[in-house]
Amino acid sequence: MSGNTWGTLFCTTTWGESHGPALGAVIDGCPAGIELAVEEIQRELDRRRPSASAASTSRAEKDRVEILSGVFEGQTTGTPISLLVANADAQSSHYEDLKDVFRPGHGDYTYWKKYGMRDWRGGGRASGRETVARVAAGAVARKVVRAAGMEVTAYTHSIGGIEISSKALKQDPHWLEKVRENSLYCPDSQASAAMEERLSAVRKEGDTLGGVVEILVRGCPAGLGEPVFDKMDADLAKALMSIGTVKAVEVGDGCEVASKKGSEVNDPMDAEGFVKNSAGGILAGITTGQDIVLRVYCKPIPSIALPQQTVDESGRQRSIQVVGRHDVCVIPRIVPVCEAMVLLALADHWLRRKAGVR
Amino acid sequence: MSGNTWGTLFCTTTWGESHGPALGAVIDGCPAGIELAVEEIQRELDRRRPSASAASTSRAEKDRVEILSGVFEGQTTGTPISLLVANADAQSSHYEDLKDVFRPGHGDYTYWKKYGMRDWRGGGRASGRETVARVAAGAVARKVVRAAGMEVTAYTHSIGGIEISSKALKQDPHWLEKVRENSLYCPDSQASAAMEERLSAVRKEGDTLGGVVEILVRGCPAGLGEPVFDKMDADLAKALMSIGTVKAVEVGDGCEVASKKGSEVNDPMDAEGFVKNSAGGILAGITTGQDIVLRVYCKPIPSIALPQQTVDESGRQRSIQVVGRHDVCVIPRIVPVCEAMVLLALADHWLRRKAGVR
Amino acid sequence: MSGNTWGTLFCTTTWGESHGPALGAVIDGCPAGIELAVEEIQRELDRRRPSASAASTSRAEKDRVEILSGVFEGQTTGTPISLLVANADAQSSHYEDLKDVFRPGHGDYTYWKKYGMRDWRGGGRASGRETVARVAAGAVARKVVRAAGMEVTAYTHSIGGIEISSKALKQDPHWLEKVRENSLYCPDSQASAAMEERLSAVRKEGDTLGGVVEILVRGCPAGLGEPVFDKMDADLAKALMSIGTVKAVEVGDGCEVASKKGSEVNDPMDAEGFVKNSAGGILAGITTGQDIVLRVYCKPIPSIALPQQTVDESGRQRSIQVVGRHDVCVIPRIVPVCEAMVLLALADHWLRRKAGVR
Amino acid sequence: MSGNTWGTLFCTTTWGESHGPALGAVIDGCPAGIELAVEEIQRELDRRRPSASAASTSRAEKDRVEILSGVFEGQTTGTPISLLVANADAQSSHYEDLKDVFRPGHGDYTYWKKYGMRDWRGGGRASGRETVARVAAGAVARKVVRAAGMEVTAYTHSIGGIEISSKALKQDPHWLEKVRENSLYCPDSQASAAMEERLSAVRKEGDTLGGVVEILVRGCPAGLGEPVFDKMDADLAKALMSIGTVKAVEVGDGCEVASKKGSEVNDPMDAEGFVKNSAGGILAGITTGQDIVLRVYCKPIPSIALPQQTVDESGRQRSIQVVGRHDVCVIPRIVPVCEAMVLLALADHWLRRKAGVR
Repeated sequence: MSGNTWGTLFCTTTWGESHGPALGAVIDGCPAGIELAVEEIQRELDRRRPSASAASTSRAEKDRVEILSGVFEGQTTGTPISLLVANADAQSSHYEDLKDVFRPGHGDYTYWKKYGMRDWRGGGRASGRETVARVAAGAVARKVVRAAGMEVTAYTHSIGGIEISSKALKQDPHWLEKVRENSLYCPDSQASAAMEERLSAVRKEGDTLGGVVEILVRGCPAGLGEPVFDKMDADLAKALMSIGTVKAVEVGDGCEVASKKGSEVNDPMDAEGFVKNSAGGILAGITTGQDIVLRVYCKPIPSIALPQQTVDESGRQRSIQVVGRHDVCVIPRIVPVCEAMVLLALADHWLRRKAGVR
Repeated sequence: MSGNTWGTLFCTTTWGESHGPALGAVIDGCPAGIELAVEEIQRELDRRRPSASAASTSRAEKDRVEILSGVFEGQTTGTPISLLVANADAQSSHYEDLKDVFRPGHGDYTYWKKYGMRDWRGGGRASGRETVARVAAGAVARKVVRAAGMEVTAYTHSIGGIEISSKALKQDPHWLEKVRENSLYCPDSQASAAMEERLSAVRKEGDTLGGVVEILVRGCPAGLGEPVFDKMDADLAKALMSIGTVKAVEVGDGCEVASKKGSEVNDPMDAEGFVKNSAGGILAGITTGQDIVLRVYCKPIPSIALPQQTVDESGRQRSIQVVGRHDVCVIPRIVPVCEAMVLLALADHWLRRKAGVR
Repeated sequence: MSGNTWGTLFCTTTWGESHGPALGAVIDGCPAGIELAVEEIQRELDRRRPSASAASTSRAEKDRVEILSGVFEGQTTGTPISLLVANADAQSSHYEDLKDVFRPGHGDYTYWKKYGMRDWRGGGRASGRETVARVAAGAVARKVVRAAGMEVTAYTHSIGGIEISSKALKQDPHWLEKVRENSLYCPDSQASAAMEERLSAVRKEGDTLGGVVEILVRGCPAGLGEPVFDKMDADLAKALMSIGTVKAVEVGDGCEVASKKGSEVNDPMDAEGFVKNSAGGILAGITTGQDIVLRVYCKPIPSIALPQQTVDESGRQRSIQVVGRHDVCVIPRIVPVCEAMVLLALADHWLRRKAGVR
Repeated sequence: MSGNTWGTLFCTTTWGESHGPALGAVIDGCPAGIELAVEEIQRELDRRRPSASAASTSRAEKDRVEILSGVFEGQTTGTPISLLVANADAQSSHYEDLKDVFRPGHGDYTYWKKYGMRDWRGGGRASGRETVARVAAGAVARKVVRAAGMEVTAYTHSIGGIEISSKALKQDPHWLEKVRENSLYCPDSQASAAMEERLSAVRKEGDTLGGVVEILVRGCPAGLGEPVFDKMDADLAKALMSIGTVKAVEVGDGCEVASKKGSEVNDPMDAEGFVKNSAGGILAGITTGQDIVLRVYCKPIPSIALPQQTVDESGRQRSIQVVGRHDVCVIPRIVPVCEAMVLLALADHWLRRKAGVR
């Protein structure tokens, strides 16, 4: 495969450039007979759109999705589901000045080295706008995954070093519901306020900020994942690392385990099941039936308004300032994208599991 | 695919259980005409074997590899290369007592939930012994990758919280050569001594320790990796997370970027190229031509000699102590495995790149 | 994969139903820097449209193709090429009467058994209209294949038993050019006239006719195809058999060799190369550098105007007459589809070959 | 993938050369809990071995198979099943004289063009001996397929133009049982006698003969096969065409349909189901629940004892006579291979179907 398809059985192929006519996804392998309304996909896309939060751009895409195939009388037919989102508010002129320049932190240089040419309008295929297609496809995957009893929720864990108070927070049994009340998808309203403040300050500096997203899968049955290479955590790591902004992925206690002892990390069992979940819901690559817990570390958006040193295609040194309509922080908009990628990975492994059961 | 095959063009399928007659790998897609001697594979397997270090087990496998196909008169033929390593020192009796018990931190429970049965001898397919086949295949991948100018070296970055002094160390231009001088594959001899001491102490406690491995790819050409899902970092993350012991993967500055600003993280360029490498050699999923830098966080080996609470297949509570011949720390033996997985991912993307170039 | 994607490196995913809003293809893996104009794709689609010949339907689709991604300033970018063809003249009302009936020779029954439901409008995904997407993708593949020196031409070999005079015909060195002069894509004008006559007669009877298409690949380099399962002829057989109407595929002398001796079938060589081509350009699954010669045997279109016995979804016996706008013979419209499938298979193997060469 | 792996879920990778140390197969994706004894595999390999029939070679391989992984206490574990068959009676010296010569009808020339080198001993990977691994894997697939109610039987349909009397034969309801009574796997004893006679005559001439094998799948449930590219018949065509000797594949009435009318070819239905089976059990690429009927046309074995004109690697003209131990006709030994390939294709689609069902 050539890199734009995800999955073995629930296969999603995405296409489209930031400033081309449209973006889209084709989902091949969705079982027949699942109820699917265009509004369900639209709702997820709306969550990905720039919000009122301090973190967001002013590019005003409506992101209306159309279902072009694979659904008949409100149900999936088992044949490929083609989803299309037209690009309406593309303003390529913003990029004209930078068309032969490699913006630091972007894919400009590497695409040029790989392909010998590139679509410089808004980053082309390397734009964050590409994730529209992932979110649309993820909405379909959510229907499959939910039918199997699973629910995937991502939320902001930290921005620019400001972290949620996980422990305090999780004493409220309904804490997860707070995620959707918040324009930063942050379940901790105090932390969220501090984040908004910090984002405003950094925006004024012309700079940007990184952050951490946590993803929680509830209701996952035991037995998902394949041994050796296609372990559930391996595929989740790939799914999440394939998001342009992600530079590290953790499962369960993640990095922390490296400085601990076996007696601390092992999760004992009693008659009720596991007594804790350091493993993050996956053992030997296969789900345990506990919550799956994942964290991704996102770099700051590279499009900053400050002057930067770089070179152009002829190797000449250039000082640039990136204009255009950019977010200050990839969080919260990356939150629905993280959900989408986890959903795509789970939907695929769910179908694979069904195939393997006698 | 069913989880035991890696790669799109340079495809490695592994097979074998800890206490079965043998383990092996079949490599399909290795180009013809590459010189390959059995000793080159053996050398890598020898690096993976238990060493004299304080970290290692006393299971005394010779791990002699045989090439059964795909090599003729010392050269690869382009047809599948079948590698086989016989199991000689398997002592299944050690496991007899635990055959219906789920050892904490192991795949016993999840395999049983997934398959409805399991080969309980030494963890079966979930055993760390499975990595013998990865290392053997990695040795072949190394020939392909090296012919393209790349060199992959992994080393111990920390054990149980004791870290190498990266900065001081890297002032010596030959620092990387020190890795192979050391039974812990640790380039910092001072840190290494402290690690050995700590390992001995923990062994006496009947406990185990986690650690961090860093992997460095030098000489990687720009342009490797596919956009969107099969990004170079996404495939590397999967490759490394597929190692049973790994719970987190970082690229470049990894987790740190999440609390930083764009102006700090972006790597500017001048006429000589990039002036720093926060990105770890990959931008938008495609290699920049700089060093690729990766880190993996390994959990402590779950087989501890201390008593642990668990249950058996009938749900009855059991207190167990895991006997058998086990390492105290998965590092250093995981070091060659990390190299192997990075090699498999690079070899595959190198062939994919060749296909894509006009 | 879930059946709607072709290829390992040059990957084509098609989607769309006969009476849905549109059909399309996404091509992932097309190398960057290939000149591609929408007119080149349109031209192939126009060849597939109903012609003035006696064989064709009166459904008047314009089949205007749009390129939605992957092409920038007239060149492919290396990212997915999304092609879309809107359905304009769908008249689902024709099918309303048959919505719960299994039309003989169609996929109605099998889709219903497989999916538990089906899009009954015009056959849904099982319609011959699905091949629009194949032909569009094939036009892109043609650019890749042609750049490698190959030319693929299909033509009518027989209709309803009336066969071209191959031997006589091929004495004219320019015989192949005659294929495009002819609304039946038949290089033998005499045979073509007889075919037209026969088609008119059969149309009057309310019946349909089968036929044979021959496909010729010129300029194919030696060395394409992989050993064992992905032999060049195996992939070509799959490519062609995946066309709904095809019931047999031959390579080279095909069926005839089964009643011959080795001394007759073997192709000897002299200093100029092979002295004949019984093998059809493929030996041990790998191209010889000679012309590739393939033949497919197409069944008559199952939509006949005569009364037929069948059952409906509740098992009740029904006598039906299929109305709607149908061709009398799948040939000539299948001719560009055969070319497209061979082109897709060749483009993929061409890229695979590039990857394998040192 | 690189050509030596079959399947999406039930994946078989084969390896090995004619005169290397061994051949083998790794099956990844076989469900856990299937009873599997080594004798079951051995029995199929014994059917493939040279028989007492007039058609066979004198190479005396015992073809003892070993199961190296994936089976525990007589049951499959869900992990890869590694099968190995050692080469015992390889006599490479027979081939020494021909090591730089391209034997007509063999893969010598194409392998050399593809790989720039080749293992000339007995044809290397291109040898018919490669099918040992297919038959071994097919025996495992048979267990999966049989558990789903399917039975696959292949038999000799014709040799050198001498055909079985299908109609007369099939009046006996037990006709299929006669296949295994016969060293030519020919259910028609009269035809079989004539074939033996013809084979003896041709052997004396130093020549070889082609033939036709028919494959029958009974008990196949409706709904197997994927729309568009991975149609059941498309995958079966590929499976069969991937056998080196096969030059044409037919489904159901095959070639005949091309000269018929729709009213003759369509299979009507009544309350009992289909009233005939021209389609060969597959409509629109999906199984109907009827018998699947396939025919393959095999070329004569190219290793003839008569003098042949060819060239060597330096382009020099050579007259050769192929010595060595060769069959006169690839039938009957190809019969179990045809079964194996159909079994591999069915096992894979059976698992795919399970994944797709809600």
